[in-house]
Amino acid sequence: MIIVMERSATEPQMESVVRKIREFGLDVNISRGTERTVIGAIGDERKLEPELFGAMPGVEQAIHIVKPYKIVAREWHPQDTVIDIHGVALGGNTVQVIGGPCSVETQSQMDEAAQQVSEAGCRLMRGGAFKPRSSPYTFQGHGVEGLAMFRQAAEKHRLPIVTELMDVRMLDTFLEYDVDVIQIGTRNMQNFDLLKEVGKVSKPVILKRGMSATISEWLMAAEYIAAGGNHNIIFCERGVRSYETAYRNILDVTAVPVLKKETHLPVIIDPSHAGGKAWMAPALARAAVAAGADGLLIEMHPHPCDAWCDADQALNPQELKALMESLRRIAHAIGREM
Amino acid sequence: MIIVMERSATEPQMESVVRKIREFGLDVNISRGTERTVIGAIGDERKLEPELFGAMPGVEQAIHIVKPYKIVAREWHPQDTVIDIHGVALGGNTVQVIGGPCSVETQSQMDEAAQQVSEAGCRLMRGGAFKPRSSPYTFQGHGVEGLAMFRQAAEKHRLPIVTELMDVRMLDTFLEYDVDVIQIGTRNMQNFDLLKEVGKVSKPVILKRGMSATISEWLMAAEYIAAGGNHNIIFCERGVRSYETAYRNILDVTAVPVLKKETHLPVIIDPSHAGGKAWMAPALARAAVAAGADGLLIEMHPHPCDAWCDADQALNPQELKALMESLRRIAHAIGREM
Amino acid sequence: MIIVMERSATEPQMESVVRKIREFGLDVNISRGTERTVIGAIGDERKLEPELFGAMPGVEQAIHIVKPYKIVAREWHPQDTVIDIHGVALGGNTVQVIGGPCSVETQSQMDEAAQQVSEAGCRLMRGGAFKPRSSPYTFQGHGVEGLAMFRQAAEKHRLPIVTELMDVRMLDTFLEYDVDVIQIGTRNMQNFDLLKEVGKVSKPVILKRGMSATISEWLMAAEYIAAGGNHNIIFCERGVRSYETAYRNILDVTAVPVLKKETHLPVIIDPSHAGGKAWMAPALARAAVAAGADGLLIEMHPHPCDAWCDADQALNPQELKALMESLRRIAHAIGREM
Amino acid sequence: MIIVMERSATEPQMESVVRKIREFGLDVNISRGTERTVIGAIGDERKLEPELFGAMPGVEQAIHIVKPYKIVAREWHPQDTVIDIHGVALGGNTVQVIGGPCSVETQSQMDEAAQQVSEAGCRLMRGGAFKPRSSPYTFQGHGVEGLAMFRQAAEKHRLPIVTELMDVRMLDTFLEYDVDVIQIGTRNMQNFDLLKEVGKVSKPVILKRGMSATISEWLMAAEYIAAGGNHNIIFCERGVRSYETAYRNILDVTAVPVLKKETHLPVIIDPSHAGGKAWMAPALARAAVAAGADGLLIEMHPHPCDAWCDADQALNPQELKALMESLRRIAHAIGREM
Repeated sequence: MIIVMERSATEPQMESVVRKIREFGLDVNISRGTERTVIGAIGDERKLEPELFGAMPGVEQAIHIVKPYKIVAREWHPQDTVIDIHGVALGGNTVQVIGGPCSVETQSQMDEAAQQVSEAGCRLMRGGAFKPRSSPYTFQGHGVEGLAMFRQAAEKHRLPIVTELMDVRMLDTFLEYDVDVIQIGTRNMQNFDLLKEVGKVSKPVILKRGMSATISEWLMAAEYIAAGGNHNIIFCERGVRSYETAYRNILDVTAVPVLKKETHLPVIIDPSHAGGKAWMAPALARAAVAAGADGLLIEMHPHPCDAWCDADQALNPQELKALMESLRRIAHAIGREM
Repeated sequence: MIIVMERSATEPQMESVVRKIREFGLDVNISRGTERTVIGAIGDERKLEPELFGAMPGVEQAIHIVKPYKIVAREWHPQDTVIDIHGVALGGNTVQVIGGPCSVETQSQMDEAAQQVSEAGCRLMRGGAFKPRSSPYTFQGHGVEGLAMFRQAAEKHRLPIVTELMDVRMLDTFLEYDVDVIQIGTRNMQNFDLLKEVGKVSKPVILKRGMSATISEWLMAAEYIAAGGNHNIIFCERGVRSYETAYRNILDVTAVPVLKKETHLPVIIDPSHAGGKAWMAPALARAAVAAGADGLLIEMHPHPCDAWCDADQALNPQELKALMESLRRIAHAIGREM
Repeated sequence: MIIVMERSATEPQMESVVRKIREFGLDVNISRGTERTVIGAIGDERKLEPELFGAMPGVEQAIHIVKPYKIVAREWHPQDTVIDIHGVALGGNTVQVIGGPCSVETQSQMDEAAQQVSEAGCRLMRGGAFKPRSSPYTFQGHGVEGLAMFRQAAEKHRLPIVTELMDVRMLDTFLEYDVDVIQIGTRNMQNFDLLKEVGKVSKPVILKRGMSATISEWLMAAEYIAAGGNHNIIFCERGVRSYETAYRNILDVTAVPVLKKETHLPVIIDPSHAGGKAWMAPALARAAVAAGADGLLIEMHPHPCDAWCDADQALNPQELKALMESLRRIAHAIGREM
Repeated sequence: MIIVMERSATEPQMESVVRKIREFGLDVNISRGTERTVIGAIGDERKLEPELFGAMPGVEQAIHIVKPYKIVAREWHPQDTVIDIHGVALGGNTVQVIGGPCSVETQSQMDEAAQQVSEAGCRLMRGGAFKPRSSPYTFQGHGVEGLAMFRQAAEKHRLPIVTELMDVRMLDTFLEYDVDVIQIGTRNMQNFDLLKEVGKVSKPVILKRGMSATISEWLMAAEYIAAGGNHNIIFCERGVRSYETAYRNILDVTAVPVLKKETHLPVIIDPSHAGGKAWMAPALARAAVAAGADGLLIEMHPHPCDAWCDADQALNPQELKALMESLRRIAHAIGREM
C-alpha cells in the first residue's frame, strides 16, 4: 500500500503512519518527493485497508497496490480453469451456449423448449423457477414445482440445467433436484450470505455481474464463493446500468478481455438481458464470441409472444438455430470450436 | 398503457394488439396520427406489462401511464405517514438524527458511543453487528454477540436501535433482541425474499437505496414490503454510483423532493456513506435537511482513527455535536423542529 | 405527442391543453382511462416540445411518440448510405479500417506510419494535428504544420486522411489542405456552431459520440450537420463514460445494431479510445466487426513506447497486421469483405 | 508519480523505467515490496504522463500523486477569491442569486423579467441570446439582437448580465455589448479553443460543469482559462448525467464541499437545469445554499407557460420571491449574508 501525505504533513504525522504500518507487521519505505512524501508499506498489504489511513491527520490518500483477490486471480493460477458440467466442458476451447426460456411456465412449454434448444445445438439449458421480479404483483415463478418440470424436460435431451437461486433457504432443495449449475442473479451478486452458502457446495455457480458492479467488486464476490471451497465459478456479464434509455443495459464487452486477464475462471455473456430486445441479441451474441467469451446464456421461447415474462427478449426457435450457425462461423474464425 | 405502432404497421397487427388488450379485460382507444397510430388500454393497466406487447409484430413501443406502486404511493394516501419508534416520531415535523458507529466493536466502545450520541442530541442509535464487506478476508461483524452489546449500551440512554439485517435466517434473532428498526442495506434492496419476510413483521424498516436503483425500482422494493402488511417503511438515500472518482458516491439530494411527492412515507439521508469521507458529511447533512429530509443516519465513532471499518467516514463526538447545532438552525429556517 | 393528465386534473385544465395543441395546428384525440386521461396530438408533432406542456396545470407528463430526427432516419431513407472517400467506399459490404497514430509528431514518424498502415491493409489513415488535451500544459498538436506532414506522408500510399477539427476558424485551412474526412471529436459532439459549419461543406464527417451522449442526442447532432446540406456523415462509437475504473470507457457495442436500425448512415468503432489500452483493442475490434460495424478507427504507432500522447493505447505495426488478419476472417464469417 | 511494476517484471524492465524518469530530469526512489516493486519519480511530475509508462513492458500501472492543476488550486492559493462583478461580490460571505429567463424572447418579456428579478432581491440577471438546442429545428435564440434587448432591460435595474457564449467568433460582439459575465455552457466545457479565448480577456467567466465531467476534468478546464491570464472563474454545478429517469440530471451537491477544498474560486449551483422541473428547484436551491454554495443561477420567467424554451423549469415571479425568503433564512443559519 502507498500512503500519500499532504504537502503540509508534519514529521509526527508521518511517524504515526509508519507506526500504524509496523503494528500490522509490515515494513516501510519512505520516498520524499518535491511536493509530496509517499510512504510505502512492504509485506502482505491485504491486511491493510485504505480507510484505516485515510482518517489519520496529514494523510491525503492511501492506495492499494496489490489486487485484493487471490484464489480467483490468474496471477496465482495462470492456466485456464475448465469446468466440467456433467460432461460438458465450459472454459476450454469450445464455446458453449446455454439456451432456454426466461421462466418455467408449463410442462409442455418446457418439453418443447428442451427439444428446440437441443436441436439448435445448445448443450445446456436455462429456465427460471424462482423469478426476481421488480413488482410483487407479477408472476414470481412456479418455485419447486418449476424445478421438477425443468428437470423432467431436460432429462430427455441429456441437457444439464441452469437455474437461479434467490433464497439461501432453498439451497437444499436445489441439491435435491440435482440442479447442475446454480445461477446467482444480478441483484444478489453482493448477497454475501448466499455467496458463502454456495461456496460450501461443489456445484458450478454462474455469478452474474451486479447491475453496476465494478470488475473488482465482481471478482471479490467470486472470491467469497471460492474462499468457502467452491472454485467452480463462471462469470456472466449481462449488461450494466447506464444513462442510455434506448436499451435496457449496456453490454460491457470489454469485461471479457479484462476478466480473461485477471482470472483463470470462465467468462460467459448474456446478450438477452443486456439489450432487452430479441432483435438486438444476435449482434450482441456475435460480438461476445468474437471478443473471446467462453459461452453464452440466451433466451429462447417456443412462442415468444405468449411468454409469461420478458416476452420481448426471447428468440424463437428458428432465430436461435440461425444464430447458432453464425456463431459457429465466428468461433472458427478465431480458432475455437462450437 | 399506450401502445405505439410502427409507421408501417398493418391493420391485422393492430387488431392483434387490440385483441390482446381485451383478453386482459381492458377496453381500447385508438388514435390514428399522421405518422403513428397509438392504441390506449383503458382499465387497470397494472395487469399488463409492456414486454407483452413489445414482442408483437408492428409494435414500436409500449409505455406504462399509471405508476406500478400503490400502497406506498401518495396518490392513494395523501397524508404523511409518521412512524412511531418507541416514542420517537419519524416523518413528522421533527427532523430525527440516528447516530453511531459503523460496526459494533466492543462493549466499552458501544457504551461510550451511546453516551456521546445521546449527549449530541440524537434520539436513535445505529451500529452494525452483521457487516456486508466487499472482501471475505476482512472483519464481518460480531453477529449475535454484537446485537447483545448494542442492546445493552443503548438501553442506558433509552435510544432505540437501528441495525442491518442481511440474512433472512437471522430475522427471528432480530425479533428476539427486539431490534427497534431493521435496516435493509443497499446490496439487498432487491433481495426480494428478504423484503417479503420483513413485510410480515411490524418492525419499522429502513430501506436503503440500491447502488444504482431508480426511484421507481426503490418504490417497488418498498411495495414488496408493504404488500406483506408492514407499512412502517423509511426510505434512506445513501448516494448512488457514478463515474466520479473524487468521492465514493453522488448523494442524490433530488431524491428527497421527488420521493416526498411520490410517497407518503418518511425519507432520510445517510451523508456518511454518500461521500465516504468524514469531512464531507457536515455539508451533505446540511443539504439534506434543507432539501426536506425527515432525518439523517450519521456515522460517529468515539475514536475514528481506531475504528475497525470505514474509519475515514466517521465523525468524532465533538464534530457530531457541532453538526447537530448547525442542523438545528437549518431545520428552524425551514419551519421544522429538531 | 401524448399528454398524460394527472388523476385530479380538471376539465378546464384539459381544455387548456387541447387549446394549446390546436394553436400549433394539430388535431386532438382524448382517451379517458380509469385512472388517467390521455390527450393525443395528431399531426406533425416535431413542432411541439414536451416542456411546453409540462408546465401547464394538471399535466403529469408529455411524451414524444415520433422520433425528432428525420434526414438521418432510416424510416425516411431505407437504403444504406455508402460514402465514397476518394474511391474508398464506407458503409457498403466492405469493412474499412482507418489506422494511424494519435498525433502527428514528425515527418519521418508519419512516413513510417503511412507505409505500415498501408502494408497492414488499411485503406485510410488517421492522425491528429490539433489535439484536445485535458491539460493546457501538455502537447497540443503541431497544428497546420502537422496537416502538411500528414498530407505528404499519406499521399505516397494514396491513403485518404482523417483528422480532427476542433476550431470552427480552422475549417478553411482543412479545405485548403484537402483533408478527406473531417473528424468531430467527442468533446465537440454538441458544439452546434461547429456542426452547422461542417454541414455547409461536402466533405465526409466522422461524428464521434459524446462522452455520455444518448443515441438520440447523437442522431440529433448528425441532424444538425445534415440540415445544413452535408449528408456524408459517419457515426463513430468510442466508448462511453461509466462507473467502471478498470478501463477508460465502456465500449457500447449495442450502439451498432441500434444505429443500423435507426439510421441509414455508416457506423464505425474506435476500439483504441474505448478501452484505453493497446492490449484491449484487438478483442474490442473483433467484437465491433462481429456486431456489424462498417469500419474501425485504430491507433497504431511505429514505436508506441515513444509516442507523444496516448502511448499505451497504440498497437505496434506487427500487432496491427495480425489484427487485420483475424478481422478479415470475422468479416467473412458474417458475409462481408475486408 | 508512482510506477507499479508487475510481479514478473525483470531488472532490465525496471531499469528502462528508471532511465525514462531520469530523461525527464526527475529523480528516482525504488521500493521493493513482497509482491510488487514500486518506482517513485521525484521532482515536478506534471511533466510526466501516466500513459508514457503504461506502454512499457513490465509496467502494471502509473499513478499521478500530485494534482495536475495549479493556478486554480487552493493548495497554492489558500485564500478565497472574491470576484467583483460591477460592484457585486461573488465568492465572499454573501450568497448571490442570478435570476432570469432561459432565453431572451422579446423586449417586453425582458423588461418585465428584469423588474421581477430585481424586486425578488437578485443582484444579477441571466438570459440566453444564443441557445444550444438539441434539435436544429427548434428556436436557436435571437443572437446579437437578443444581447441588445437584454442589455437594455437589465440596465434600468443596474443588474449585471450573464449570458452564454457558444461560438468563439462571437467573443468580440460580447465585449462590444459589454456582457458582464460570460457563461461557458455544459456542452462546451472541454471546447478548449473557446476556453483559451476567454482566457485572454478579463471578464468573469461562469464555467458550467460538463454533462459527465469529473471534478478533476472540470478543474483542468478552468486551468485552461486561467493559464491564459483570466483568473475570474466561477464554477457552476448544474447536475450530472445518470441512469435515473425521474429527473433530468442528478444535482451533485457533494461537488460544493469538494470544490471549496480543491480550489479558491467561487462555486455556484444551477438548480433549474439540474432537476429540469420548476417544482424541484426550491428544494435543490435550499440544499445548495446549505451545502455552502456561493451563489445560484435560477430560471424565472414572467409567464412560464408561455416560455419559448424549458417552460417547465422556470419559476414564476411569486415563486422566486418566496424562494429568496427561505434561502435568506438558510444563509443566516450557516452564518452567511444574502
